[in-house]
Amino acid sequence: MSTSTSAAGKIRLHHLIDERWSPRSFEDREPAESVLRELFEGANSSASCFNEQPWRFVVARKSMDAEWERMLGILVEKNAAWARSAPVLGFSAGKKTFTHNGAANRFGLHDAGMALSTMMIEAVALGLRVHGMGGFDARKARELFHVPEDFEIGAAFAIGYSAEEQPPQRKRNALEHVVFEGDWGRPAGFAR
Amino acid sequence: MSTSTSAAGKIRLHHLIDERWSPRSFEDREPAESVLRELFEGANSSASCFNEQPWRFVVARKSMDAEWERMLGILVEKNAAWARSAPVLGFSAGKKTFTHNGAANRFGLHDAGMALSTMMIEAVALGLRVHGMGGFDARKARELFHVPEDFEIGAAFAIGYSAEEQPPQRKRNALEHVVFEGDWGRPAGFAR
Repeated sequence: MSTSTSAAGKIRLHHLIDERWSPRSFEDREPAESVLRELFEGANSSASCFNEQPWRFVVARKSMDAEWERMLGILVEKNAAWARSAPVLGFSAGKKTFTHNGAANRFGLHDAGMALSTMMIEAVALGLRVHGMGGFDARKARELFHVPEDFEIGAAFAIGYSAEEQPPQRKRNALEHVVFEGDWGRPAGFAR
Repeated sequence: MSTSTSAAGKIRLHHLIDERWSPRSFEDREPAESVLRELFEGANSSASCFNEQPWRFVVARKSMDAEWERMLGILVEKNAAWARSAPVLGFSAGKKTFTHNGAANRFGLHDAGMALSTMMIEAVALGLRVHGMGGFDARKARELFHVPEDFEIGAAFAIGYSAEEQPPQRKRNALEHVVFEGDWGRPAGFAR
């Protein structure tokens, strides 16, 4: 699939979205509790199917040594190497069933993603960055933190104040391969 | 689970996130192509596992009568009733495998949710609102729009300029039931 490294350069996205990115190095300071609360209230304000709000988050702050080390231990080595600088680590989970009737909710993980994405953008407003990770041992996360079977493990994440500059370009698929109109694979008129 | 209707009122979220909501009535005007392009570039700028960008979107604009009617037809009756006022309808899909090696990507639907959430927030910056829907016939969507088997159908959505005022309160689970620290179910210090 052809990619465009400058699509976001041609279009002026809102700065909160344009400045969202995933650093691999963080400053050695922990966000204040009020800041963390706002960050997760942002996530918690996200949209969800039937307003189920299926997302949950398990976090560990560096100031809580053992808990943070335990969280670091769920990451694959490649991620743990850089995430070691992050003052807050954690992972998300999505409830597999609707609370009001117990029926299967196929949007549990989808909506946990919605919430994490909202958190990433609220983070920018707070001067923070959130780096999401797929590379971690979800089974280990479930065991160590006693995640109930009714929840699917989502993504891991690192939270902190970036110690890096944002790279100038974002590598993205060209929009004509992403947005279709009329039929699958037919680029939307506005995406060409 | 206890809920808090005023949590977002006590905390001051960024206005783009605070003003994201899901209207059921839209003005009778179609967003310009440049606006739709920016909206979907916003979605396309989202984070994803291994930067796979597994999201795709199929849309229909009201000005394209038959296509839009076909899209309206995938919605459950309750949603179709109000979504009839929306100038743009569509649904998302998430790729089930990584393009670089063909391995299963368990974040396909999760990351399609990430992109939709980013789009919802970019929409607010553009004066638009995006209302996501789980209530639609995903099998029918796949058949009518020829979605390949390697993609999981995500959420449907309506896009437009809201014809309603935002409700004053957002019903949300209390953060102490959403963010845990140390162990599942133990409220994070900053969430109490």
